[in-house]
Amino acid sequence: MENQVIINPWSIIEEGFDPERICSAESLFSIGNGAVGQRANFEESYSGHSLQGSYLGGIYYPDKTRVGWWKNGYPEYFAKVLNAPNWIGIDIKINGQVLDLATVPVTRFRRELNMKEGWYERKFQVQCAGVELAVTALRFISYDNKELACIKYKIQLISGSGSLSISPYLDGGIVNADANWDERFWNTLSHTSNKNQAYLLSETKKTEFVVQVGMKNFITKNGEEVPVEWEKEESENKIGLSSTHQTKQGDEWVVYKFASNATSLNHDKEDLRQLHHTGLDALQIEDFAKLKEEQAQSWSNIWRTSDIQISGDDKAQQGIRFNIFQLNQTYSGEDARLNIGPKGFTGEKYGGSTYWDTEAYCLPFYMCTKGEEVARNLLLYRYNQLDKAIENAEKLGFSDGAALYPMVTMDGTECHNEWEITFEEIHRNGAIAFAIYNYQRFTGDTSYIKEYGIDVLIGIARFWVQRVNFSQEKQAYVMLGVTGPNEYENNVNNNWYTNYIAKWCIQFTNACLEKYKQEEPSLYSQILARNSFKDEERITWETVSSNFYFPKDEKLGIFLQQDGFLDKDLVPASEIPQGQRPINQYWSWDRILRSPYIKQGDVLQGFYFFEDHFSKEELEKHYKFYEPLTVHESSLSPCIHAVLATHLGMMDHAYELYLRTSRLDLDDYNKEIEEGCHITSMAGTWLSIVEGFGGMKMQNGHLHFYPSLPKQWESLHFKIQHRSRVLAVHINQHSTTIKLEEGSPLKVFVNNEERVVSQQTVLS
Amino acid sequence: MENQVIINPWSIIEEGFDPERICSAESLFSIGNGAVGQRANFEESYSGHSLQGSYLGGIYYPDKTRVGWWKNGYPEYFAKVLNAPNWIGIDIKINGQVLDLATVPVTRFRRELNMKEGWYERKFQVQCAGVELAVTALRFISYDNKELACIKYKIQLISGSGSLSISPYLDGGIVNADANWDERFWNTLSHTSNKNQAYLLSETKKTEFVVQVGMKNFITKNGEEVPVEWEKEESENKIGLSSTHQTKQGDEWVVYKFASNATSLNHDKEDLRQLHHTGLDALQIEDFAKLKEEQAQSWSNIWRTSDIQISGDDKAQQGIRFNIFQLNQTYSGEDARLNIGPKGFTGEKYGGSTYWDTEAYCLPFYMCTKGEEVARNLLLYRYNQLDKAIENAEKLGFSDGAALYPMVTMDGTECHNEWEITFEEIHRNGAIAFAIYNYQRFTGDTSYIKEYGIDVLIGIARFWVQRVNFSQEKQAYVMLGVTGPNEYENNVNNNWYTNYIAKWCIQFTNACLEKYKQEEPSLYSQILARNSFKDEERITWETVSSNFYFPKDEKLGIFLQQDGFLDKDLVPASEIPQGQRPINQYWSWDRILRSPYIKQGDVLQGFYFFEDHFSKEELEKHYKFYEPLTVHESSLSPCIHAVLATHLGMMDHAYELYLRTSRLDLDDYNKEIEEGCHITSMAGTWLSIVEGFGGMKMQNGHLHFYPSLPKQWESLHFKIQHRSRVLAVHINQHSTTIKLEEGSPLKVFVNNEERVVSQQTVLS
Repeated sequence: MENQVIINPWSIIEEGFDPERICSAESLFSIGNGAVGQRANFEESYSGHSLQGSYLGGIYYPDKTRVGWWKNGYPEYFAKVLNAPNWIGIDIKINGQVLDLATVPVTRFRRELNMKEGWYERKFQVQCAGVELAVTALRFISYDNKELACIKYKIQLISGSGSLSISPYLDGGIVNADANWDERFWNTLSHTSNKNQAYLLSETKKTEFVVQVGMKNFITKNGEEVPVEWEKEESENKIGLSSTHQTKQGDEWVVYKFASNATSLNHDKEDLRQLHHTGLDALQIEDFAKLKEEQAQSWSNIWRTSDIQISGDDKAQQGIRFNIFQLNQTYSGEDARLNIGPKGFTGEKYGGSTYWDTEAYCLPFYMCTKGEEVARNLLLYRYNQLDKAIENAEKLGFSDGAALYPMVTMDGTECHNEWEITFEEIHRNGAIAFAIYNYQRFTGDTSYIKEYGIDVLIGIARFWVQRVNFSQEKQAYVMLGVTGPNEYENNVNNNWYTNYIAKWCIQFTNACLEKYKQEEPSLYSQILARNSFKDEERITWETVSSNFYFPKDEKLGIFLQQDGFLDKDLVPASEIPQGQRPINQYWSWDRILRSPYIKQGDVLQGFYFFEDHFSKEELEKHYKFYEPLTVHESSLSPCIHAVLATHLGMMDHAYELYLRTSRLDLDDYNKEIEEGCHITSMAGTWLSIVEGFGGMKMQNGHLHFYPSLPKQWESLHFKIQHRSRVLAVHINQHSTTIKLEEGSPLKVFVNNEERVVSQQTVLS
Repeated sequence: MENQVIINPWSIIEEGFDPERICSAESLFSIGNGAVGQRANFEESYSGHSLQGSYLGGIYYPDKTRVGWWKNGYPEYFAKVLNAPNWIGIDIKINGQVLDLATVPVTRFRRELNMKEGWYERKFQVQCAGVELAVTALRFISYDNKELACIKYKIQLISGSGSLSISPYLDGGIVNADANWDERFWNTLSHTSNKNQAYLLSETKKTEFVVQVGMKNFITKNGEEVPVEWEKEESENKIGLSSTHQTKQGDEWVVYKFASNATSLNHDKEDLRQLHHTGLDALQIEDFAKLKEEQAQSWSNIWRTSDIQISGDDKAQQGIRFNIFQLNQTYSGEDARLNIGPKGFTGEKYGGSTYWDTEAYCLPFYMCTKGEEVARNLLLYRYNQLDKAIENAEKLGFSDGAALYPMVTMDGTECHNEWEITFEEIHRNGAIAFAIYNYQRFTGDTSYIKEYGIDVLIGIARFWVQRVNFSQEKQAYVMLGVTGPNEYENNVNNNWYTNYIAKWCIQFTNACLEKYKQEEPSLYSQILARNSFKDEERITWETVSSNFYFPKDEKLGIFLQQDGFLDKDLVPASEIPQGQRPINQYWSWDRILRSPYIKQGDVLQGFYFFEDHFSKEELEKHYKFYEPLTVHESSLSPCIHAVLATHLGMMDHAYELYLRTSRLDLDDYNKEIEEGCHITSMAGTWLSIVEGFGGMKMQNGHLHFYPSLPKQWESLHFKIQHRSRVLAVHINQHSTTIKLEEGSPLKVFVNNEERVVSQQTVLS
């Protein structure tokens, strides 16, 4: 029985049971609320291949680094996303036999992830111990009450009879699949039960986060609540409640399991030790429906400001909704301690919660769909970790407040341990600075930089100034030994992108400081004081930034990705022999490195960030030079090219890139969905629609749109939150309508024509 | 009680017991015979920090690779030097208490490694269970009978009395400290005992090498053999014999333990399963003295052709003798399956047995002190692994018989797993080709290349031709993405040394082929046929080799280590702040990489190999440019610089470099002697004397000497085997004498003056 994903604008639906696809579906059908997340593991036992995953935002474990060959400067620990205590488990036995889909014949199987209302449902039919059963398991993690989750597990006896055991449990005996030393990351502290409630208290090793999971269970039979004498089932790391009932053909049993996840991030540890969660006390069976309704309402609110509608292309529609849904499941924006892990709550892989993806790809999405405050929280996350970034730079030999933000982090310390990335992919610092600028540009809020952002900018500018050296040969400042966004080049000299963003960082920071010095001298003094900064430092900044070296071929009129790029054998990627793509699966690393092939836009990433610094002719020339060499083997690649291609009017090409980014996981392009979804690149999909096809840009303090749809689409509709307003943008092949849904009138530009958006403004 | 190494021209002597130095001394006092080796572990139990190490040449285990981040092309396994079954163990109990130097007061302690006669002795005095004991443990591994080893363990009762238990054993339950997955590498197959003999049969996992260790034991009391009823002590992986005796003050007990190590490399596995070693049968107590005398004779023969005498400088004398001794312990040259591991038989570290060290540093030593046949065996080792080198290149995407020899190997397959080394430090191929040329140049034997060497040369030349690409920009062939001998640069373009030796390989191979084509057409046809080689291939070779790119600064007149080298901040190493050397212990890897500092000669390694291609002025200019940037943090570095510095007349500097190379381990410059000795760099020490101070060179088919002593030395005396002769070269500050010790008269040159060496020729 093969399964298939069905195209549906609001749901991800899979029909058919295929043991080979269990792990993949576990990733795709994950649910979360920005604080708690859960892979689509089965409630009942499953002895087949599966990746168990319950995740709690901000709860991590520093796993001792394991490498083949140690290099000085490697971090000692890699902060892992933790598989947390299992709260979904409900063991089922029929006539004494464990219900386990790996061992019984499955006659029907269907999953649905309802993105509109935020729930996940699984239906299946099996033969087990002489009984034919139909099960419908629906669950959701409350978006509003971050600690609450609900499961409704319905069992119908189609034929047969006998005993039915129902055993909901909490299990702290979980492990991480990616543990470096095969260690457990948790200690179970205690557990207890009282009637239909049970609690389990766990603590992470080393970090000593305390987590209390709880459950409250009800059973109904044919619609009537069954009074249950729950039997306690205890072991070292697990607590369960169990009850057994006689049942016959036609019976319908429902288990309601309300679960709570409370952590020491938000609670006093002493309170957690009480092994009680008042949120569960009051809950009764009827609350399930009410909570489900509230959940639908929460998601309706999310969609109100973030939905994108594409007419005439259901695959594209489903793709973008899935991306928006997952982004909202991963990060809800209220808590500045949390961030957007590359796999969100859909897998363990990569560890850490924060990469440069957040600033370079995700910030615009959250800023435009969830608002300024959320964007500000993302910026504050880095501000709060500035001291760690300074420490990190010190470990690598920098001084005097130079800050190098980590490549991968959970709490501000570096986790990553590949020298060519950890020590060299330092352009991440640039994206963090750019996000601060981007926030101010879009929101018009100048207070953030003054109060917080400037400290981060100073740390970053100081880093760049120390990281370069003066080349006597070139009579300019050079930056040696870096890895650019294109990770298919390592340890190169003068990566154009890195040099460009470094120079920009220094100059932007310097310009802010100059402005404050002129306009707000007391603010300027405060900034100098709190950063132990001397005005003279800016003289060096000026010297360095105005004498930065940029590799360029004058004849071609092309900025070179790095020194020596033209020494390569510049054969277009289209000529790579059949069966050798993706090259990262077929070629040895050295062959990839000396090839001209680009994993993700590098010079073009710079053109994306700083498009206004260049003419359209320059963009076109560079796009036509670099695109044919780009193999897009990073999930973060096609989206940026899609934006640029749209701006160049290459619509078919842009559409092709869009599909690749938006359905990367749904269609499993890279054959790795088992490990989790590519959450951060989903924000890139949003960019390719809003900044690409929608052509949205901030220019001179105003929103501009340069719309341009692929021919496959009848229309495109998206919402933007901007300076206390909600704008609804509707684009079709002939016209663009922008409606003001909330807030006061606003001047915007469509194809450079000025329009004031009030109630409903039609702009052709 | 602190210990100290005593300067002695023929012995390494350490006095005093320092638990902190146990592991270091275990390395320094290692013994071996080129086939079997043993760290200086104690015979009796020792519960302190120690690195147990018994090693058998050619016996290895492919340990599953463990890396932080996998790269395509990494080998699946790393062949480890194996800690083999322990044959030295003799447990001693006094009045029921285990004799363990970690737990009893040690009142005297002395070790001696007698290099002249090839034995190791340890003397100590302790208080144990009310008894004062003096122990003298002497052992050696027979140089002539590769499977035999002998221990004489003498116990004197200085005071006290009681019971004495003596339990010699064989233990197969050993582990490797560097196991990637904490697995055991051995299975014990069986063991047995018969009277005073016992045997243990072990098999390596995966590789299924079978090893039979055996022992035969005798005990004397006050000079008389004691008839012993040995009690068997067995466990899964261990077999021991035990006997207990009453003893009193003044008694002198001696345990004689004869041990055998037989492996399936040299025996039929069935024979080994017999659990018997005829070599032990006939041995009696008296044989110990006889075998020890034979051992002294064997070493006397070794010293006859390899000793170096330095008058007026005992530290220098001890240093070079220790190096020559260890080189002979590591490799004796009869067996073309064995090679020279970087730690020899003194530690596990690095794994593998063969690095480019063999060809670049060790070959001249063995060729000049052990003779042509031994050098030929070293070359044959690589010839025999040519198929694997071709496979290795195929894995990386090369084809048509291109051969890439591994960076580290045991059986021809690559083991190493750092991409910047494994895939990029490909200059190793060049050294392997150069050794073939060097052998022919020195020995005059042209048959080796014709029969074997040419196949290796063709494979290597093919590799280089495929590894380069044509740069439109430079209109020349470039080699991108390599690591040169200076491993403080990774993934650079156009490493001058690699390009130079690559070009030389292609041209030398081509010249050989052209010569055979002209002079021996039938040989030429055979070579073409067996290598599936077409004459036309040589046209491409010619095109590539005559259009090779070499980075050079015309203004400075300096070949650049790699493209862009002059972009670095070229501050001499002498200005590195105090307390930051070695930089590899204090600086992060990225800082090292972008610094100008050179781990070991790179351009200068090329000048060393190809000195005759350059003028003395060029050598001087390059030496003065690169030496100040060289930090010599590779053990292979100072020796090459010492040779070049001598040639430039920089004698004080050369002497300083010599001391650094010759006493690297004795004085533990790098604080890592615990892990084992730097065996291969010891051959570099020999080079710095013979090619440096002795000024020996082959020029135009003749031996030349350009002697030049450091002022600290009164005289230098060394021997050279050359074309069926033994030459004794005696150099003092005023004159050079060369004596013909064996063979027929020979024309040599001293400072370019032609002389015929017959019996004794004095050359000023």
